[in-house]
Amino acid sequence: MLIDLSNLPLAAAGDAASVLTDLFLVLLAAKLGDEVFKRIGQPAIVGEILAGILIGPSVLGLVEASKVLEVFAELGVIFLLFWVGLETRIAEMRAIGASALRVGVAGVVLPFAGGIGLALALGESTETSVFVGAALAATSVGITSAAMIDLGLIRTRAARIVLGAAIIDDILALLLVAVATGIAASGGIRFGELLVVFGLALAFLAFFALGGTRIMASRPQILRAPRFSESPLLPAVLLCLGVAALAAQIGLAAIIGAFLAGLMVAETKEQHPIEDEVAPLYAFFPPFFFAFIGIELELGELVDAGTLALLVAVTALAAATKLLGAWFGARGIGGRDARIVAVGMVPRGEVGIIVAGIGATVGAIDAQLFAVIVGMSILTTIAVPTALRQIGSP
Amino acid sequence: MLIDLSNLPLAAAGDAASVLTDLFLVLLAAKLGDEVFKRIGQPAIVGEILAGILIGPSVLGLVEASKVLEVFAELGVIFLLFWVGLETRIAEMRAIGASALRVGVAGVVLPFAGGIGLALALGESTETSVFVGAALAATSVGITSAAMIDLGLIRTRAARIVLGAAIIDDILALLLVAVATGIAASGGIRFGELLVVFGLALAFLAFFALGGTRIMASRPQILRAPRFSESPLLPAVLLCLGVAALAAQIGLAAIIGAFLAGLMVAETKEQHPIEDEVAPLYAFFPPFFFAFIGIELELGELVDAGTLALLVAVTALAAATKLLGAWFGARGIGGRDARIVAVGMVPRGEVGIIVAGIGATVGAIDAQLFAVIVGMSILTTIAVPTALRQIGSP
Repeated sequence: MLIDLSNLPLAAAGDAASVLTDLFLVLLAAKLGDEVFKRIGQPAIVGEILAGILIGPSVLGLVEASKVLEVFAELGVIFLLFWVGLETRIAEMRAIGASALRVGVAGVVLPFAGGIGLALALGESTETSVFVGAALAATSVGITSAAMIDLGLIRTRAARIVLGAAIIDDILALLLVAVATGIAASGGIRFGELLVVFGLALAFLAFFALGGTRIMASRPQILRAPRFSESPLLPAVLLCLGVAALAAQIGLAAIIGAFLAGLMVAETKEQHPIEDEVAPLYAFFPPFFFAFIGIELELGELVDAGTLALLVAVTALAAATKLLGAWFGARGIGGRDARIVAVGMVPRGEVGIIVAGIGATVGAIDAQLFAVIVGMSILTTIAVPTALRQIGSP
Repeated sequence: MLIDLSNLPLAAAGDAASVLTDLFLVLLAAKLGDEVFKRIGQPAIVGEILAGILIGPSVLGLVEASKVLEVFAELGVIFLLFWVGLETRIAEMRAIGASALRVGVAGVVLPFAGGIGLALALGESTETSVFVGAALAATSVGITSAAMIDLGLIRTRAARIVLGAAIIDDILALLLVAVATGIAASGGIRFGELLVVFGLALAFLAFFALGGTRIMASRPQILRAPRFSESPLLPAVLLCLGVAALAAQIGLAAIIGAFLAGLMVAETKEQHPIEDEVAPLYAFFPPFFFAFIGIELELGELVDAGTLALLVAVTALAAATKLLGAWFGARGIGGRDARIVAVGMVPRGEVGIIVAGIGATVGAIDAQLFAVIVGMSILTTIAVPTALRQIGSP
């Protein structure tokens, strides 16, 4: 600007200005990245992540990671998964349950073991190695869903299996994080606590996926009764935020709650009006999620040769172990579908970054490893949509 | 909860949980307050503010004012004013320009002088008194608009005059804040700075209200061109956030920018599809604005007899001076309309609270005075919709 406004007496109001400017810049950059990548025939979410890298501290430095942006990113992936839940019927999830369980479990064991092995081989401590393994374990439900939506595959059986398996992954990753933080805090594993964590997660899932959907199906008018609202939008959004907050309270990823809330709403009569009304929230928030992954990347941490080699090794290991494990779990469902499932499980993202973040707060993951894990989730995310399109096109 | 989850190893993820829980509780409480008040025939926004008081630190203490809630409140009033702008044509604003200017100016002079007089009479310093005057000066565009929408008056000529006058008030309040912070910082008024502040505000208003709307009217497809998006929603939202951020950058209230962006979009061919698509954002964010006013209230600061007496005096003075000033400015437009305008100008809100907040950061407004000003804006807000309904009903 021509005039240095910080000298004006109104600079005290500048805080609101900087937050609004951040929100504007992130949304603008994500939208431009999205549009440019669509024009050149590339996946929109990759454009949004790269836009985040571009405006973030790594390149232009226009925007920094902040609490407010983090909350918008969180709401972005919450509304994304709520949307995916809205598009999914519980009966479809039941039909793929056994396959999803096999894929999820097999797809966690190998990357976890591989991550621990690599970290130990590089001379890291046990606790750091367990965190690296846990960060490599979970498929990104958010990124996988968005890629499937982008490619028009979200309603296929393979996509349902990936979605179910990714949710199972998240629960297993939750357990692995409990193990890892237990080791970091006390040097040992407290099985009593693990049992509580696991029991709570299963009870939560069963309560909403089985009980919740049944209640909604038996009272299809519930979101309007007792004439709570002219529109069913806010009741549906409240259900989404409430179940997501509850999931987070018991230590699960909030997005699992959002997905379950979407599943429940999908059983009511209001599914279609709510889809129309949620669409603008789904357009507004998710770009913050993808751009924020890019903003969190610290390219500066990755510039030396050793770190770059580590990034390549971790990414290759993350991709290979997940591909192999998921393919092994999915091999019963037939060739092309099994390949879609195996590739679809590769992207890491929010949960891996959350795990690495928890590791950082307990001192087990340093800035370099954190950057490697963010970099790995970006690389796996960038590679997968292209690979999926090649397999997915009939 | 039955189990103390803070002992579980996953408490590190608890930050996301508490933010989501806050957002859920605020939205739920606001929506319930809204519905209850509609049922008992009272204004919805009053129900939302009281719900905020109820869940806030003053009563139940479920939720505290936080940076994230403040941003949601800010976006709430931004989308509210964007919506009001969408419903307004620039030609209508031009038609009431002269009346709005008279009402706005007359409606600022009296409360400002009255606020200074009262504070000086109570033995406050000059700088504190100027802040009190400035906090009393500006009508709340947000609250006034919402009350007019609630009562079905938003498309009337009187509502346009109130809206225009309230925007003029905001600009004058901006100048008064510049005066007040200048006095607080240096003990004097720097006219050069005031001229820059005033000039920037006028240039901003003229650029977007006159130039911006003309550009949009001459290129009615602009929000779709060059096929920027399948839907014009995000371009419109980006325009809203961008102009709001720019307004905040030059020290104006961000909501003035949002209103101008709405005015601009209203001139394009996309007005109706955008209204439909913005409606969910307009349903989601504004409840945070009204509930947050209640959350900011600290009833504890108001419990002693002296402070209560001060609150009554400030509220009576704020209402009487604004009524008188605005009525004087509006007397040319005819009896009933002039009365609607005078009453419609009474609610204070976001700008008064912002002014008091700036006063607090420079040390001129203490916690007691801040609570009195928040209390005054709540009392003027609660009184006005009922009064408006009595005058407004034909």
